[in-house]
Amino acid sequence: MSLLVVGSLALDTIETPFGRVENVPGGSATYISVAASYFVKPVRLVGVVGSDFPKDAMEFLESREVDLEGLQVVSGGKTFRWGGRYHYDMNTRDTLFTDLNVFEHFDPVIPESYRRTTYVCLGNIDPVLQKRVLEQIEKPRLVVGDTMNFWIKRRNAELKATMRLLDVLIVNDAEVRELTNEPNLIKAAKSIMGMGPRVVIIKKGEHGALLVTGNTIFSAPAYPLENINDPTGAGDAFAGGFIGWIAKTDDLSDDNLKRAVIHGSTLASFCVERFSLERLKDLNYIEILDRFREFRELSKFDEEIAV
Amino acid sequence: MSLLVVGSLALDTIETPFGRVENVPGGSATYISVAASYFVKPVRLVGVVGSDFPKDAMEFLESREVDLEGLQVVSGGKTFRWGGRYHYDMNTRDTLFTDLNVFEHFDPVIPESYRRTTYVCLGNIDPVLQKRVLEQIEKPRLVVGDTMNFWIKRRNAELKATMRLLDVLIVNDAEVRELTNEPNLIKAAKSIMGMGPRVVIIKKGEHGALLVTGNTIFSAPAYPLENINDPTGAGDAFAGGFIGWIAKTDDLSDDNLKRAVIHGSTLASFCVERFSLERLKDLNYIEILDRFREFRELSKFDEEIAV
Repeated sequence: MSLLVVGSLALDTIETPFGRVENVPGGSATYISVAASYFVKPVRLVGVVGSDFPKDAMEFLESREVDLEGLQVVSGGKTFRWGGRYHYDMNTRDTLFTDLNVFEHFDPVIPESYRRTTYVCLGNIDPVLQKRVLEQIEKPRLVVGDTMNFWIKRRNAELKATMRLLDVLIVNDAEVRELTNEPNLIKAAKSIMGMGPRVVIIKKGEHGALLVTGNTIFSAPAYPLENINDPTGAGDAFAGGFIGWIAKTDDLSDDNLKRAVIHGSTLASFCVERFSLERLKDLNYIEILDRFREFRELSKFDEEIAV
Repeated sequence: MSLLVVGSLALDTIETPFGRVENVPGGSATYISVAASYFVKPVRLVGVVGSDFPKDAMEFLESREVDLEGLQVVSGGKTFRWGGRYHYDMNTRDTLFTDLNVFEHFDPVIPESYRRTTYVCLGNIDPVLQKRVLEQIEKPRLVVGDTMNFWIKRRNAELKATMRLLDVLIVNDAEVRELTNEPNLIKAAKSIMGMGPRVVIIKKGEHGALLVTGNTIFSAPAYPLENINDPTGAGDAFAGGFIGWIAKTDDLSDDNLKRAVIHGSTLASFCVERFSLERLKDLNYIEILDRFREFRELSKFDEEIAV
């Protein structure tokens, strides 16, 4: 199975109570691709960088067998830059700056070799661009899309148009409430299911994730991490782990969607342990399986004794 | 096994987006006793009301086999009254008024027949009174205590003194952070375990609950309710379901604590379906077991296929 990922590639400057890093590799496409690469090969990347995107970051992506044919490198251009500061509780952050740079005029062009791809993951970028990607490829088996509050506010109609083409929407709890004007998360998820996606995944950060399909509701716990260094990319690593597992197993049953949510949670939990891509870099598949099993223990309880 | 419950009995005036009720029975001891009564009999109640506490509420408690020998009825006095308004998202509320009335000079006196009680649940009242209760009884097998932000702020030293006598502390996520000055919930729970309780349960409302013991961390999902009419008493119903199950089974193993957390979550989920005690009134044990099993389905996932 093949997987196509579109999204941003960025150089992030991040401050958390536990440190500060400057111009480190980031962006939704980067995190999604790296997370998914632990499950499926090749991952086909569509995005744009300037000529300042670090060579070793590019080489790292290649070492994860991420196909960079769809990556546009704008000669003399500057890579998209984002700066953010996380607060003490790590659940809220301020955006310090957003320099779109080469991203401002990004027009995703899908290489011929990408046009038949089984699985597609649309990272958090302008919904107009997400739609343009879908228009260039043959109908894939499953399209997963992520978005964020910025697009819900600024590109609402365009986002709704893109949502009609999604099979799975991944959003966080605040976003799904904003998108539906419905405070109850289950009602909100069901309301989304009338807008296109037949599967809704609500990311709740330290509270885990909810999967809602036509037939099932599944509550995934969060991994009880005591040391979170940098939450950046957690949502993208989740999406990458989720779609990576789906692409690996090629099984769209509710039971396998649940396993995919746990694999997403697993990758997200590794992601936040260190800054930028540091932890996702030195991961191995045994660690992933071990943590998957730890997730099982975390929410498992026995049937009560007979009474 | 026997269970002693101390806490408030109140007449509540509650506004939610779905309705308004006036002077309906409430209070921590009321909710805890009724929830626990589905698991264990007798439940021994210690509290105070005025002569205006409704006769039918008293009769209802008796019909649930709640022992009222420890209930002080102040002749001519007025029952504690609380008024609150819930917002659209149901996760936040404003207290509109608190009239302590007979509660202001409440001095819990433990009847001779209560002094040997196996299990004790200290509902959310002044920690000084919680401690006074414990001083009057023979060492019970397990003491569970609840508290709230008001006491964390106003009676911090007294609360810490009471906490040293608890086996299990039940608090919500905001409270455990306030109590420990630690934003990470797992670290916060471990910090509590240095203050007395060997088991910490963190209630997270729509996000479920966390159980932390010396050997295990357990994440319980929230029941995916679409219609919540009145969140009042949910935390107390949780405590009642938890300690009720423990008292019924007399098993303090981690595995049984997990089941108790699910039974607490079950009773809380029923509680919020209707106003005041309405839903807890017409519950039966089969419904409780059915919902317990639904909780299992909600968080269950199969081991992944071999790779």
